[in-house]
Amino acid sequence: MARIETLKNELKNQAISAALITQNVDIFYFTGSMQNGLLYVPVAGDPIFYVKKSVVRASEESSIEVEPLGRMRTLGDRIKAHFGKPSILGLELDVLPYQLGVRYQQMLNTEIKDISSLIRLQRSVKSEYEQTQIRKAAHLVDEVIQLLPSWISIDMTEVELAAKIEQYLRVRGNINLNRMRGYNQELALGMIASGSAAATPTYFDGPAGGLGLTVASPQGASYKKLAKNEPILLDFSTVVEGYMVDQTRIAVIGSLQDDLLQAYEVSRNILREVEKLGKPGVSWESLYQHALQMVEQAGLQAHFMGFGDDQAKFLGHGVGMEIDELPILANGFKQSLQENMVIAIEPKFTFPGRGVVGIENTYVVKSDGLESLSISSEAIIVVEG
Amino acid sequence: MARIETLKNELKNQAISAALITQNVDIFYFTGSMQNGLLYVPVAGDPIFYVKKSVVRASEESSIEVEPLGRMRTLGDRIKAHFGKPSILGLELDVLPYQLGVRYQQMLNTEIKDISSLIRLQRSVKSEYEQTQIRKAAHLVDEVIQLLPSWISIDMTEVELAAKIEQYLRVRGNINLNRMRGYNQELALGMIASGSAAATPTYFDGPAGGLGLTVASPQGASYKKLAKNEPILLDFSTVVEGYMVDQTRIAVIGSLQDDLLQAYEVSRNILREVEKLGKPGVSWESLYQHALQMVEQAGLQAHFMGFGDDQAKFLGHGVGMEIDELPILANGFKQSLQENMVIAIEPKFTFPGRGVVGIENTYVVKSDGLESLSISSEAIIVVEG
Repeated sequence: MARIETLKNELKNQAISAALITQNVDIFYFTGSMQNGLLYVPVAGDPIFYVKKSVVRASEESSIEVEPLGRMRTLGDRIKAHFGKPSILGLELDVLPYQLGVRYQQMLNTEIKDISSLIRLQRSVKSEYEQTQIRKAAHLVDEVIQLLPSWISIDMTEVELAAKIEQYLRVRGNINLNRMRGYNQELALGMIASGSAAATPTYFDGPAGGLGLTVASPQGASYKKLAKNEPILLDFSTVVEGYMVDQTRIAVIGSLQDDLLQAYEVSRNILREVEKLGKPGVSWESLYQHALQMVEQAGLQAHFMGFGDDQAKFLGHGVGMEIDELPILANGFKQSLQENMVIAIEPKFTFPGRGVVGIENTYVVKSDGLESLSISSEAIIVVEG
Repeated sequence: MARIETLKNELKNQAISAALITQNVDIFYFTGSMQNGLLYVPVAGDPIFYVKKSVVRASEESSIEVEPLGRMRTLGDRIKAHFGKPSILGLELDVLPYQLGVRYQQMLNTEIKDISSLIRLQRSVKSEYEQTQIRKAAHLVDEVIQLLPSWISIDMTEVELAAKIEQYLRVRGNINLNRMRGYNQELALGMIASGSAAATPTYFDGPAGGLGLTVASPQGASYKKLAKNEPILLDFSTVVEGYMVDQTRIAVIGSLQDDLLQAYEVSRNILREVEKLGKPGVSWESLYQHALQMVEQAGLQAHFMGFGDDQAKFLGHGVGMEIDELPILANGFKQSLQENMVIAIEPKFTFPGRGVVGIENTYVVKSDGLESLSISSEAIIVVEG
């Protein structure tokens, strides 16, 4: 219920009378249950989780009082009878479909206001429990990293490697869903992509691309075979109790050319610098700007986070139950880091026709800088070719 | 461009001046590309696909003229300068987030109208090409069905079986995304669940449930071990070039009790009946109602499509690039079947504590009834125990 109290305070600060929480991940965050329903949180009084399906299961899981949702058309009157009519209703307008937004507004016949930033900001600061789940995820990802030298071979396709990683993680708790909050954003495990295929730009809001298996999902692993002396991008996550870690390492069959190795070293140096800088009170954008300076000093700005028109203009992103959480390390984000925010930081360099090199760790913000939750060796994984 | 012409005619019929298509799947349907952008379709004149990322890749893939999207704040003026100001703008208000709906409405300073039903109805009728992809998916799913007797064993967990199926399909083109249009709906491959775990209700809008691996994704495969004489529900799909098939079969290690076998036969009989009834012109709800009569005659109404308060009240759903397409075979849907609609029909019976039995085929509506795209034997898969 501490999470509900924090939410209530934030609502009060913004003069919002109540929140109607509708998104499955946010509902899970506040109730402990992901059953299908609507969570009503008044600024004054106890919240109610109105559940459509399954009421039995929600009652077992939820820390909030559960009531059957019943008929949708009577819900508005029930809420008004129990809580009074809210003068301003908060909704997650970043994810709630327009149709439903109108419906809930009419149901309570009230003014509506977006509370998505407020919820996303609250969720960006992780509890000890949440950090523990992400640490567990980081350990599982590291198990894969340690097995990769025995898995990678010159005859296999990118998707064969991806499928092997997926199977290993799946039976160890991966739900096979990499949740993203952004409209139209999708992710299957991550990006297992090599050489020129990895450098192919995509619609995905990230630095790496991937040919993908089809134009109907044009990103990530493809049928391209792993080849000698090309960087193999191993950007993947796993999910433990709903919480993800995000990590990138590079492998090669044979060896990489010097300029790629140098770019990889720059990406590691960027991590070392931002680990020291990333303290509570420091602005999100300043970490991006500092990285950009280092990139320019190395003369690599044309390759940073993509190439040409397809460069992504950020350095890192919050990670938790969604892979695109706050904070966002990019220009224009003047907010401050807070203790216990969890951030994936991923300096990468794209060389068209040749591949992507770079690194990514998931960190937690502590009083004296960033602590890495990722535990994998940062050395390039070299496989005999 | 035939798809664009159909859309234009529908817009004209509803007195809508232009559509702004925003959802990735709809964009792919109309352009042939799934790059990140916005598709503007005027009733009069040629459409333009404004692409944010990747412009290069969209230009190669799209059958529609591509222009770089550029700065979002100037897009409205560019559209108005090129096409004139639309008096009514159509948007996919079933999926478009509220925030974005408001933004696009303000960008073109116009009245907006929901065109999601119109687009979903158009997409429900499949071309020969689309049917071919679904047939290919059905063949891959059947390869798995034929392998299952050698894969299933009494020591394995549900998720181990799911992971094996996933790996097999993944390297053969599965994009590892089972797209759903409904808000908050998610699906990882399907439901591989056995005995009491399969009968556990979930938030998912379907007949079967599944314990899942965690409360943070409470559906589908769990750590439960496959046991003797329990129905093993094998409800899964695969994706070929973005198109899915949906199919369910039942396996057992040992044998099933008579009442479960009888319920399974009822589900097969329902399929035989609706195959004959499902012709162009027949209402969607009539197929559900006919099935319901057969279920009542068999005295199984308490078990149909879930149990107790958690019963799902439908018989089948359209399937294509999303698993929850039109038509919906349920009460209240008085629309008529049209030739070449593709529908997954899935009569199932839930026995709490014991399991789920039932069957599902994907069909295409032809002039003389339903033609099955699923090719798997309908016999229960029996494994020696």
